[in-house]
Amino acid sequence: MISVLINGECKESISIFDRGLQYGDGLFETMAVYENKIQLWDAHWERLKNGCQRLSIEIPDKKLIENEIAIITNEKLTPNPFVIKLIITRGSGERGYKFPSVQNTTRIISRQPWPHLSEEFKTSGVAVRYCETILSENTQLAGIKHLNRLEQVLARNEWNTNDFQEGLMLNANGDVVDGTMSNIFAVKDNIIFTPDLSSAGVSGVMRNTVIERAKELGFSVYEKTFSKFELENADELFITNSLIRIWPVRTIAKKRFTQIGKITKQLQQAVDKTR
Amino acid sequence: MISVLINGECKESISIFDRGLQYGDGLFETMAVYENKIQLWDAHWERLKNGCQRLSIEIPDKKLIENEIAIITNEKLTPNPFVIKLIITRGSGERGYKFPSVQNTTRIISRQPWPHLSEEFKTSGVAVRYCETILSENTQLAGIKHLNRLEQVLARNEWNTNDFQEGLMLNANGDVVDGTMSNIFAVKDNIIFTPDLSSAGVSGVMRNTVIERAKELGFSVYEKTFSKFELENADELFITNSLIRIWPVRTIAKKRFTQIGKITKQLQQAVDKTR
Repeated sequence: MISVLINGECKESISIFDRGLQYGDGLFETMAVYENKIQLWDAHWERLKNGCQRLSIEIPDKKLIENEIAIITNEKLTPNPFVIKLIITRGSGERGYKFPSVQNTTRIISRQPWPHLSEEFKTSGVAVRYCETILSENTQLAGIKHLNRLEQVLARNEWNTNDFQEGLMLNANGDVVDGTMSNIFAVKDNIIFTPDLSSAGVSGVMRNTVIERAKELGFSVYEKTFSKFELENADELFITNSLIRIWPVRTIAKKRFTQIGKITKQLQQAVDKTR
Repeated sequence: MISVLINGECKESISIFDRGLQYGDGLFETMAVYENKIQLWDAHWERLKNGCQRLSIEIPDKKLIENEIAIITNEKLTPNPFVIKLIITRGSGERGYKFPSVQNTTRIISRQPWPHLSEEFKTSGVAVRYCETILSENTQLAGIKHLNRLEQVLARNEWNTNDFQEGLMLNANGDVVDGTMSNIFAVKDNIIFTPDLSSAGVSGVMRNTVIERAKELGFSVYEKTFSKFELENADELFITNSLIRIWPVRTIAKKRFTQIGKITKQLQQAVDKTR
C-alpha cells in the first residue's frame, strides 16, 4: 500500500542535502480526507501557492500534485478519515543559504492515520493554557505554513499531560496570536474576533473557512490584536484547524465557560456542511 | 569513498518523518578540516551540546560522534581543507509537535568540498550590505545553531551578484545582530565591540575564539546592542566564521575603509595560530 510519494516515486526517504532538512526551507499542508476526498483542497492549495510566492519557491504544478494525491487517497482498504500531509521544499543544492542556481522543488505527499480526537472535545469543549514560549514576529514569514516550527515544538512540549488540549502562544508584547496547532476565535456581544496574523502566526485554512461562514451567516468578524484580558472576557471562545474543525474552549487560565456558546454551535454546523 | 554517515550507516537519505525535515527540529555545526583535523572541535561540540540542552534534545555520545567523524575525515585521497557538517535532529516520531515518547536522535555527518574563498577577501577585505529581511527575536532560540534558517535564506538571496560577500541582518529595532553566515566585530578607539546575541543571532564558534584571543592580547571586548551608526563610525570592522576565520570589511553602505585595520590584522594572526 503506497503511503508516501516523493516527486512521484514510491519511497520514504529524501536526500540529506534537501534544503527542507538543511534549513527548514519549505512549506507544508496538513489536510483531512473524508470519503477519499481532501477537504478544502482549493483553500490548502491557495495557501501553499501563496507561501511559495512569499519564499520564492517555484510553485509546483497543481495537476501533478492532484494526481499524486489521488494515487495515495484512492488506495483501497484505507480506513477513512485519514490525513494527507503535503510538504514542498526548495529541493537540494550546494551548501549555503543561497538559492540553488536551478531550483528543483521537492514534493512529499504522505498518508497518515487519523489522530485520536475525542468527540467530547467537539461537544463539551477543551481546556486550553497559555504557553511561555513566545512567537517571534517577522512579517515576511507571518501567515504562511513554513517548515521553521521550533517555537511550536517548544510550546507544545511545555505540558505533558492530557489536562490541556491546546496551548495559546503570545507575541513579545503579550498579545495572543494563535495556538500551537490551531487558531483562536472569540465572540463578544455577538461579534466575532480573531487575532491579526500580519506579524506572526499561521493563517489556518479552517480559520478562513470559519470567517467566510460567519460572514455568510451575517456576523461581523474582526481581525485585531488581542490581549489575554479580552480573551478571558469573551462570551464564547473556540479553536480551529483542518482536522479538529471547531472545538469550543471550556477553560482558559481561571476562566470557565459553563456551556458551549450559541454562535460556536451555529458555526460548527455551518462548517460541517462545508465538507 | 564515504562522504555521509547517518547514525553510523553509510547512506545519504533520511526518513521524511524525521523531525529535522518536518519542523526544523534540530541543530547543526559547520566545521573546517585542515590536515584531516577538525578545527575548534571542542568549541563546536560545546555549542551543539548547549543547543541540545536548550531544545531538550538528548545529547548524543561525544565519543560516538568523534568516531564517526574520524571515519569520514580519515578517508584517503580527500583533498584538504574540506568541510564537515554535523546535523543532530530529534529523530522520527508520530505526527504533531509533541516530542516522540522515545527520542531517537538522528546524527548526520557529511563531508563537503571546501568553498571557493578568495585569499583576497582575507587580505583586502570584503564588501558588506544591509539586508532588509529582519532577524526575529526569541531568547529561547537566540545563540544556538538550530535548523530554522528561513530568515537567513531570505536575507542571503536579497542579492545575487558577487558585488557583496555578506549581508548584515538587523532586528526589528534596527540594531545590527549578525551576518547571514557570520558574526560582526567593530573596533573603536582600540576597544572591540560585537553585537549582543541574547535575543537573536547565532553565537559563532569563531566569534568566541576571536573574543578569547582578543582578551589574551589585552583588548577590552564588549558585547552590546549595536546601531548602524556605531558600525559605520568604527575604526575597523571585520566578520568571522569557522571557514573564513576573519575577513576585514572594506565597505558597508557608503562607508569605505582605506586599509585593513591594525587590530584586525593582529587578530587574524592570533586566530591563525589557534589552528
